[in-house]
Amino acid sequence: MSAAERVLVVGGGPGGLEAARGAADLGAEVLLVEAKAELGGTPWEAYATLTPHLKPTRELMAEVVGQVASHPRVDVRTDTRVVASEGEAGHFQVTLEQGGARTVESVGAVIVATGFQHFDPGRETQMYGYYEYDDVITLVDAERMMQQGKLVRPSTGAPPKSVAFIQCVGSRDRRIGNQYCSKVCCGIASKQSIEVKHLVPDAKVFIFYIDMRMYGFWEDQLYWKAQEEHKVNYIRGIVTEVIKKGDQLLIKGEDTTMGRPVEVLMDLVILSVGMEPSAGTLEMGRIFQIPREPHGFLATVGEPLDTVSTPVAGVFVAGAAAGPKDLEDTVSMGGAAAMRAVSFLRRKASQSA
Amino acid sequence: MSAAERVLVVGGGPGGLEAARGAADLGAEVLLVEAKAELGGTPWEAYATLTPHLKPTRELMAEVVGQVASHPRVDVRTDTRVVASEGEAGHFQVTLEQGGARTVESVGAVIVATGFQHFDPGRETQMYGYYEYDDVITLVDAERMMQQGKLVRPSTGAPPKSVAFIQCVGSRDRRIGNQYCSKVCCGIASKQSIEVKHLVPDAKVFIFYIDMRMYGFWEDQLYWKAQEEHKVNYIRGIVTEVIKKGDQLLIKGEDTTMGRPVEVLMDLVILSVGMEPSAGTLEMGRIFQIPREPHGFLATVGEPLDTVSTPVAGVFVAGAAAGPKDLEDTVSMGGAAAMRAVSFLRRKASQSA
Repeated sequence: MSAAERVLVVGGGPGGLEAARGAADLGAEVLLVEAKAELGGTPWEAYATLTPHLKPTRELMAEVVGQVASHPRVDVRTDTRVVASEGEAGHFQVTLEQGGARTVESVGAVIVATGFQHFDPGRETQMYGYYEYDDVITLVDAERMMQQGKLVRPSTGAPPKSVAFIQCVGSRDRRIGNQYCSKVCCGIASKQSIEVKHLVPDAKVFIFYIDMRMYGFWEDQLYWKAQEEHKVNYIRGIVTEVIKKGDQLLIKGEDTTMGRPVEVLMDLVILSVGMEPSAGTLEMGRIFQIPREPHGFLATVGEPLDTVSTPVAGVFVAGAAAGPKDLEDTVSMGGAAAMRAVSFLRRKASQSA
Repeated sequence: MSAAERVLVVGGGPGGLEAARGAADLGAEVLLVEAKAELGGTPWEAYATLTPHLKPTRELMAEVVGQVASHPRVDVRTDTRVVASEGEAGHFQVTLEQGGARTVESVGAVIVATGFQHFDPGRETQMYGYYEYDDVITLVDAERMMQQGKLVRPSTGAPPKSVAFIQCVGSRDRRIGNQYCSKVCCGIASKQSIEVKHLVPDAKVFIFYIDMRMYGFWEDQLYWKAQEEHKVNYIRGIVTEVIKKGDQLLIKGEDTTMGRPVEVLMDLVILSVGMEPSAGTLEMGRIFQIPREPHGFLATVGEPLDTVSTPVAGVFVAGAAAGPKDLEDTVSMGGAAAMRAVSFLRRKASQSA
């Protein structure tokens, strides 16, 4: 097949799915490569429900996954990795590896949608005890329990009577090297706080935060709702330490609104871990020679007026590979990248015709 | 011309420009209608510079404005309004009015990109004195001065020695009816605070805020930069009153971090006014029968996995017509809407062929 009207989409999460469906709907042939066994990406794998409506992820995403998988112009390769690329815009020769077998494919343009990985709180282990205490978990660990319709203390298997979220773990933190805000953790913690109250109605729920970044409609859809309907307690403060006390966890810090130290005992502590570029994102940056912006994500050009073009001709990006993005950002970028990639190829074809 | 491959884009701001260029690059004929005399929308008209890099708006936007205006497949109609629409997806008959003359145009799909208007602080006049005191201005008034390379006290024409920004004016406020967060005002105020220090290096600058919603890279690009390089003072607190005292303005409120009342005299007060649906957005909602979501903006379906489709077949939305959006959101949505509109028309054409 000619490379001229063929687009490689790397990554089968929400950004890659939207990009693949979009480019294929516009008439291009799409090669969609996903390293894992299933399409759907991080939300499909790790998130029981999605902001802002708390609906089941797989129910929401099944339609787009199905449309992409059955699309006559999308060639889906799961369990497959992009391992090398040669050539340039209009004529990339991309090497794929699946189960040890390598093939070379010709594509005209590339959309990188390889997303993020969650910050590993091991780097902060001395502070919050993620690897020391069973009952210190992350947002993702909590979602995995919620996928099974429960929320319990890992140490006992019993529902917690008190739950504390600690925000900005791995974000807004010069010491650990991530200066940026990860954008979605305030929304996810607020969503989870409501779900905790659904699952364990008697639990007391606290969210320790610096700023609640509940932008746009999240303000009343999630933040007000959590407080007014579900009696979630938001405490503005800095948590300096989580230590074991008896069979509970003692949270020490400062309530900056009240201007006093705070020490509270909790059954379960949930760390709101931020976003970092995924291994796949770093690898695609290397393979397609996409520069990284100062925070380590893939660079785009033209910010704020072009969110998806990288400095490499014919290579576009969608979603959190380019920085912290919420789902709406990611899906909009997927659609925009599809438009840009297809129009790029048509312009190139008309120039060489 | 057949309606089948013709897209109407309403609004020539960043979302409409991106949508128009995108749809035209994909091969569709585009009819771009703008009520004002110039393309560029609210940023072009009202903002001297753009976040996050503080570059001149017109310099940044000139390229896309030029590309759209000179695109062989974009028919630009400025000083023109959409006043009526009949028919349905694939076959809209849209009535345009320009200088009293009406024409009817056939289009297959519609992208509404009519944006927002700034909250009018007159509604809060008793609190902040916008219509009472010359030296109480809005973010937009400040930008207009900065477009001329200056920042002065309107009462005297002299540079201010002290400047206070008040955040969340017309946002996060049940009393005035806008429950949502307007998303961009924290970023714009922080950007302006840096510009104030460029223009008036000796000025003391304060930002009174509830939460600084400096999501993503704005955190260090603007928020840290304002504090560390430009010594801007961020004060978490509620401002209850602005009153005239001598030839200055007395700000009364509460510093919630310090837990004490605050009273400070300022030379200039800048109100960070939020977003509301523009008159054009409400009018397009009526004409194309697009339902409004609970906050009053145009409704989209499929949130968070589809940001641009309205409940009306063949009608899409880009940018702040659908709620508070930053420029990146708006431009991504413009590209996504172009993709959706063109693929919608091609699917329709293939079904009826």
